[in-house]
Amino acid sequence: MDKTDQTAIDESALVLNRTEKSAEAVLRVASMALSITGLVIMIKNSISNEFGSVSYSNIGAFMYLVSANGVCAAYSLLSALAILALPCPISKVQVRTLFLLDQVVTYVVLAAGAVSAETVYLAYYGNIPITWSSACDSYGSFCHNALISVVFTFVVSLLYMLLSLISSYRLFTRFEAP
Amino acid sequence: MDKTDQTAIDESALVLNRTEKSAEAVLRVASMALSITGLVIMIKNSISNEFGSVSYSNIGAFMYLVSANGVCAAYSLLSALAILALPCPISKVQVRTLFLLDQVVTYVVLAAGAVSAETVYLAYYGNIPITWSSACDSYGSFCHNALISVVFTFVVSLLYMLLSLISSYRLFTRFEAP
Repeated sequence: MDKTDQTAIDESALVLNRTEKSAEAVLRVASMALSITGLVIMIKNSISNEFGSVSYSNIGAFMYLVSANGVCAAYSLLSALAILALPCPISKVQVRTLFLLDQVVTYVVLAAGAVSAETVYLAYYGNIPITWSSACDSYGSFCHNALISVVFTFVVSLLYMLLSLISSYRLFTRFEAP
Repeated sequence: MDKTDQTAIDESALVLNRTEKSAEAVLRVASMALSITGLVIMIKNSISNEFGSVSYSNIGAFMYLVSANGVCAAYSLLSALAILALPCPISKVQVRTLFLLDQVVTYVVLAAGAVSAETVYLAYYGNIPITWSSACDSYGSFCHNALISVVFTFVVSLLYMLLSLISSYRLFTRFEAP
């Protein structure tokens, strides 16, 4: 990208070309859809049988996963709209805010995926020294749904790692260093 | 930082001033020290009493925490040495490598802290619907040590979030966009 066709850089604002905008909006909308899917699968995840009954709300990690996916879905929608609707050029403050929020959402969703993955792992295999038995022998479909929700959550965290890369690249290349 | 006193930017390499180098090296050495501390606390964490015996190696999350802290400590040392020892100017490839590895280590350590935090939480409170009893009634000191190790790990992940910010700022501000 040589100097001439580089978008004119106003010291305090940035003009995003149409392709950049649409590509990024698509990534954010995809993240929203995947977050909602992970969230809905987990929220509807409960079971009642001869062994007893358990619901996602009985497990702290799964409650955190639902909240993290909820926050992520809402933020993804708002940020996608912001990218598309904000009048060009986008100001440095807006780009910086997007950059920081993208990073925070990445960490929040990654942590949600990690804690729930650990819980699902323990539910499948238990832990003998700590006398935790496997729960999935009794609640197979509950574990299966939780696992699927965790996979969706990790896919969202990967998308957000990419979005964080894009927004740090945009912030630091397009604006003068402070 | 206006144009004149901005360090001369050769298109393909970067001159870091002495303060930047030392500050960053200190951050990396501090991360190394904290990682090693978290790792050693967890590795020495085992207990044997009338209830039975349990060691960190019986719990997958804690094994992951030890490995993640080990990788992080080694990487922190190497990257601190690289920052100090690499001949100036540092090339774009080196800066880019540092940037990517900083991001990866941040995610790896954050995930390690999250899965271990979940395990410690379950050990303290158990989960009745899944018939997991609290383990810390029987293995108090084991839980306590694990908790301290998890805290160290989260502090390391915070330091690496800062280091990731620094290295993305350095990569994108000091080199021409690809």
